[in-house]
Amino acid sequence: MRFFIFGKGKKMWKEYLECVRKQAPIIHNITNYVTANDVANVLLACGASPIMAEAPEEVAEITSVCSGLNLNMGTLSEQKIEAMFLAGMKANELGHPVLLDPVGVGASQFRSKAAEKLQDVLTFSVIRGNISEIKHLSAGTGHAHGVDADLADAVTEENLEQAIAFVKTFARTRQTIVVVTGKIDLISDGTQCAVVRNGSKLMNQVTGMGCMLSGILTAYLAAQTLQKSEKSGKNEVDMECPRESSFWAAVAAVAFFGVAGELAEEALKVEEGSGMFRVRFIDAIGNLTGETLEECAKIELR
Amino acid sequence: MRFFIFGKGKKMWKEYLECVRKQAPIIHNITNYVTANDVANVLLACGASPIMAEAPEEVAEITSVCSGLNLNMGTLSEQKIEAMFLAGMKANELGHPVLLDPVGVGASQFRSKAAEKLQDVLTFSVIRGNISEIKHLSAGTGHAHGVDADLADAVTEENLEQAIAFVKTFARTRQTIVVVTGKIDLISDGTQCAVVRNGSKLMNQVTGMGCMLSGILTAYLAAQTLQKSEKSGKNEVDMECPRESSFWAAVAAVAFFGVAGELAEEALKVEEGSGMFRVRFIDAIGNLTGETLEECAKIELR
Amino acid sequence: MRFFIFGKGKKMWKEYLECVRKQAPIIHNITNYVTANDVANVLLACGASPIMAEAPEEVAEITSVCSGLNLNMGTLSEQKIEAMFLAGMKANELGHPVLLDPVGVGASQFRSKAAEKLQDVLTFSVIRGNISEIKHLSAGTGHAHGVDADLADAVTEENLEQAIAFVKTFARTRQTIVVVTGKIDLISDGTQCAVVRNGSKLMNQVTGMGCMLSGILTAYLAAQTLQKSEKSGKNEVDMECPRESSFWAAVAAVAFFGVAGELAEEALKVEEGSGMFRVRFIDAIGNLTGETLEECAKIELR
Repeated sequence: MRFFIFGKGKKMWKEYLECVRKQAPIIHNITNYVTANDVANVLLACGASPIMAEAPEEVAEITSVCSGLNLNMGTLSEQKIEAMFLAGMKANELGHPVLLDPVGVGASQFRSKAAEKLQDVLTFSVIRGNISEIKHLSAGTGHAHGVDADLADAVTEENLEQAIAFVKTFARTRQTIVVVTGKIDLISDGTQCAVVRNGSKLMNQVTGMGCMLSGILTAYLAAQTLQKSEKSGKNEVDMECPRESSFWAAVAAVAFFGVAGELAEEALKVEEGSGMFRVRFIDAIGNLTGETLEECAKIELR
Repeated sequence: MRFFIFGKGKKMWKEYLECVRKQAPIIHNITNYVTANDVANVLLACGASPIMAEAPEEVAEITSVCSGLNLNMGTLSEQKIEAMFLAGMKANELGHPVLLDPVGVGASQFRSKAAEKLQDVLTFSVIRGNISEIKHLSAGTGHAHGVDADLADAVTEENLEQAIAFVKTFARTRQTIVVVTGKIDLISDGTQCAVVRNGSKLMNQVTGMGCMLSGILTAYLAAQTLQKSEKSGKNEVDMECPRESSFWAAVAAVAFFGVAGELAEEALKVEEGSGMFRVRFIDAIGNLTGETLEECAKIELR
Repeated sequence: MRFFIFGKGKKMWKEYLECVRKQAPIIHNITNYVTANDVANVLLACGASPIMAEAPEEVAEITSVCSGLNLNMGTLSEQKIEAMFLAGMKANELGHPVLLDPVGVGASQFRSKAAEKLQDVLTFSVIRGNISEIKHLSAGTGHAHGVDADLADAVTEENLEQAIAFVKTFARTRQTIVVVTGKIDLISDGTQCAVVRNGSKLMNQVTGMGCMLSGILTAYLAAQTLQKSEKSGKNEVDMECPRESSFWAAVAAVAFFGVAGELAEEALKVEEGSGMFRVRFIDAIGNLTGETLEECAKIELR
């Protein structure tokens, strides 16, 4: 049973995008040094405002003046893990959306254990990774990847059914929204699963695309939370972002990101490659309108 | 009473620019990982040569083979603060220009205290920040921002008078040159204040523009110091850069940076945005001639 | 006596390039934060896959899932040195190619000593630097640069003979391949020396060109090693990459890099500068075909 939400959903995507540009949320990123510059620029381009800070001495204070927290495990270190705990606990306390991007989890025990501990202590609004990373999170350090041994390392039309079941279970078990990105993107809140078929193959040839999307996902959720606290007449963000609206904001962010990739690819001239694609992608993030987003978003609800 | 220096000053700006390209000063940067690549590339484009090094074990030695030191508080850490002290004391001893860029000061006690201690121990040739950051430095950690409570967080034509008075006082009290950047830029040595009205609104949409300007300001001051020691026949840089000439070098650097922003914006094609602006900005820094600088610089002395 | 290998060698360069794209080696980089993003993107563009990881807790495990290790001494720290030893010993044990890029060696005792200790403990397949850096390695911390005092800080047609003799001796003494880059590039295995005259003068105006080449050199060597273990029917990389084939792979990588620089320069439009050159360079790395490489490579064997 499939339900296509092209019709019904159209107006909504535009609203999520415009909410980010209106609320201009400040996003605290504890992230890797390889892609930090791109994450900052993509956040600015989408209408948000980035802060990068990772000294344990200051992260709780920094995150307090922000509206969302993006924890990215690239170029991980002991000190960065400590900072993630301190910032994460404060953000949880304040009801800010917190995202986990488990970069390279499974590539080392150090990262796997850190991811596990972070999940034990913190409440994540979203966990975003590729299918391998999410599978590693699911298996944990104690298992031999038993449950998911059959699931391939890429989501395809062939294994889509199985992949959807997997992400729904993972989201339900962890009580979070999970975003699995690849050629086909999946977003689930444990009950429903959106399948997004936007994007460009060039996105695989630029480092940090996942990191950038994680930044933007955090901004989309933070903007929703800000908007709600505004409507409820409260000055501070003191309410948890309900799962339902976070889910739709996450779907909007993923489609937004994919459509920007398509526009960037279209804008490429002869002889231009991945270097120029990365530049035109930032341009597309900034120039993308709500109308184009709704026209181009390919979202299916399962 | 206003004095427009469009006429008299014209020739001077070109000379400051050409001095950087001729002296090709090596600039030691202790900076953040978010924008370090852009700072390095913009220094190369303007004719200087960057070194990034922050290990406490080597910074004094590294700064000795350079001609200027740029201390940027982004992604601050305890170790980076230690490195700043060690490098700063050596640079002070050698008479190298030293710049403080108090990124995010006021966002945490950690940064505020670090900025205060750095100012206590080191002599800065220039302090550069946005108006909020400079206000935080002015208020210090012990005050409740009392003095400047009335000054808004952006310099506009409406509050210009008040902002100029503030930066003059700050520069005089701290015995340094202060550069406040925003839509309108202010540069003061405590006696006079230059108002620069160059730049592009796109500069707000790219991360690290302030960091890049701080690098270039350091290069402009270092080039002046080198030139003077050359003229005085001394092989090493062992004289302090007089406040007067540093002031004009700083004004030239700020105008140079703003004009490059204008040229980059002009070079943008349809559909290009902040991603391409950043690239064309580096191009403009490299291609900008002394003639264009003097033609386009909008500098007023107050 | 000179031997031009334009004829004989033609086919070979293409094969080395295609081997990288076919094997898609995963390269572990312990590198500086200034240029890490460019190194990652250039590795992706040339067909390889980058991992950046430097926590001592995980580097041995990370390097085990890779096929080559690139050790870059920029923004060096005590912890990074520790990580280099741990990763390097594991990579040596597994027979992975290991490259040393002694960024800024000679600028501080800290870097000089680190470079010396790394060479004492680890076996390097390639050491790549500019002529000053390699001279510093050659002199060591114990000498007053005596031996090489006569060799200028740039390889030119005038001092080419002397430079070739120097790099041959260095390569033979250290039992490694040495790559000296500059306007003229030299590659030696201790017996023979290839002189490569490709490249663009704009490569000096972009930070991290050396770092990027080091990444690509590691990928070229790793791809050769993978291909050989594949042919020998072994699943894991457990044989040392013979010096001979590493030498030719290094020559191919250097020519590939230089030709990409030429194509990037040719692609520049009026008013474009070093900012756009950097972008078009990544494009050229991705788009360069084996045919163009063989047509444009200027390689002389001495």
